[in-house]
Amino acid sequence: MATDYTNLPTPSFVYVDFCLVPLGTGNPSVAEEVAEVQRVLNASKLSYTLHSAGTTVEGPWDDVMRAIGQAHEALLQRGIVRIQTSMRVGARTDKVQHWKEKIDRVENLLAKDSKESK
Amino acid sequence: MATDYTNLPTPSFVYVDFCLVPLGTGNPSVAEEVAEVQRVLNASKLSYTLHSAGTTVEGPWDDVMRAIGQAHEALLQRGIVRIQTSMRVGARTDKVQHWKEKIDRVENLLAKDSKESK
Amino acid sequence: MATDYTNLPTPSFVYVDFCLVPLGTGNPSVAEEVAEVQRVLNASKLSYTLHSAGTTVEGPWDDVMRAIGQAHEALLQRGIVRIQTSMRVGARTDKVQHWKEKIDRVENLLAKDSKESK
Amino acid sequence: MATDYTNLPTPSFVYVDFCLVPLGTGNPSVAEEVAEVQRVLNASKLSYTLHSAGTTVEGPWDDVMRAIGQAHEALLQRGIVRIQTSMRVGARTDKVQHWKEKIDRVENLLAKDSKESK
Repeated sequence: MATDYTNLPTPSFVYVDFCLVPLGTGNPSVAEEVAEVQRVLNASKLSYTLHSAGTTVEGPWDDVMRAIGQAHEALLQRGIVRIQTSMRVGARTDKVQHWKEKIDRVENLLAKDSKESK
Repeated sequence: MATDYTNLPTPSFVYVDFCLVPLGTGNPSVAEEVAEVQRVLNASKLSYTLHSAGTTVEGPWDDVMRAIGQAHEALLQRGIVRIQTSMRVGARTDKVQHWKEKIDRVENLLAKDSKESK
Repeated sequence: MATDYTNLPTPSFVYVDFCLVPLGTGNPSVAEEVAEVQRVLNASKLSYTLHSAGTTVEGPWDDVMRAIGQAHEALLQRGIVRIQTSMRVGARTDKVQHWKEKIDRVENLLAKDSKESK
Repeated sequence: MATDYTNLPTPSFVYVDFCLVPLGTGNPSVAEEVAEVQRVLNASKLSYTLHSAGTTVEGPWDDVMRAIGQAHEALLQRGIVRIQTSMRVGARTDKVQHWKEKIDRVENLLAKDSKESK
């Protein structure tokens, strides 16, 4: 096992979907914090989309993780003392697939169902 | 601590966002499996939406969890031997808020930014 | 596609690992809430273990999800108005594997490394 | 809103708990891949622990994310074509708390229960 693990690069393309939760704010609403996160992502110039349960960002591993880390720091600097975040990360080398294409593939499969049942 | 924990009910309304991953299929694509999951959700009559990194389902805890459990079982019965799923669950008693309203609130906050910067 | 999805059962054995976050409490500590969750799990008679980043519960899908739902309800009844939970669910039909065995397998593989490097 | 988001730092201390799933391998077991991930973390010199449902790593945001990114890359370079990972991230500024202390606090609360019920 002669791999030099310390010099490995990080993946060149990933998607990261995340949902950030501020703790101890005394306010059950998180809209202000989610808006601030979007501002950080917007400044990053990465491709991202807000959806029903989080935000998906796409790009090189280091850039995506740096932007999400900055989003955490932005909230900590505004006085949020604790943050708990859930993330889903996807990496693949067999093809580059934008999230929109993934949804399209599923919807095409489902469209065939209704044709077949006629 | 006299609470009778065994007879507690489960929450009357939750949203569950999930991303299901089949293992050991020899195929890196998951579109077929995601389509099958949508069919199970469709049969459940619950409200759900497919997005960039998963599917969000809303309704009573027991109904939502039963439908997602059935989605797992549907894939196991089709020969998938192992499934690993990531979920985000949200429960709140202060108000009922459909996911669309949550996104609208954030977008309204961001819309104010651009007005203020003019 | 003649499957009757509405009558599908749920998986007979799963592990669910979860991390529950109370929102709007005004207190960044979550130890009280985590302790309450352990009390609910203890009453459920299911097998569970608390670890560095959550709690893992094992058993039939319906029983595990009911217990975790009751844990949410226990906190909502104590006045927590919003909860956000992250879960990992694992289901497999090829074998029953307790989480302890999974860790042992990995540690056995790593133990071979140090023998080989001598 | 004059914040310069692009020059924000990332948090100085986080814990990241992750569970990495290789897709398309034709093998439902993941022990080999989990062992490889541990080797990358070991080389990183960060503090980490393997538990019932994942691995928890602690340290500065950039270092932790770099190590986890390298773990992904190590598997991609070994021929895994797709990886899906679930992560929980915790950041706080009110105190530095090792995961072991968090568990101790909960267990101390539960120990009081049994004293009170005597």
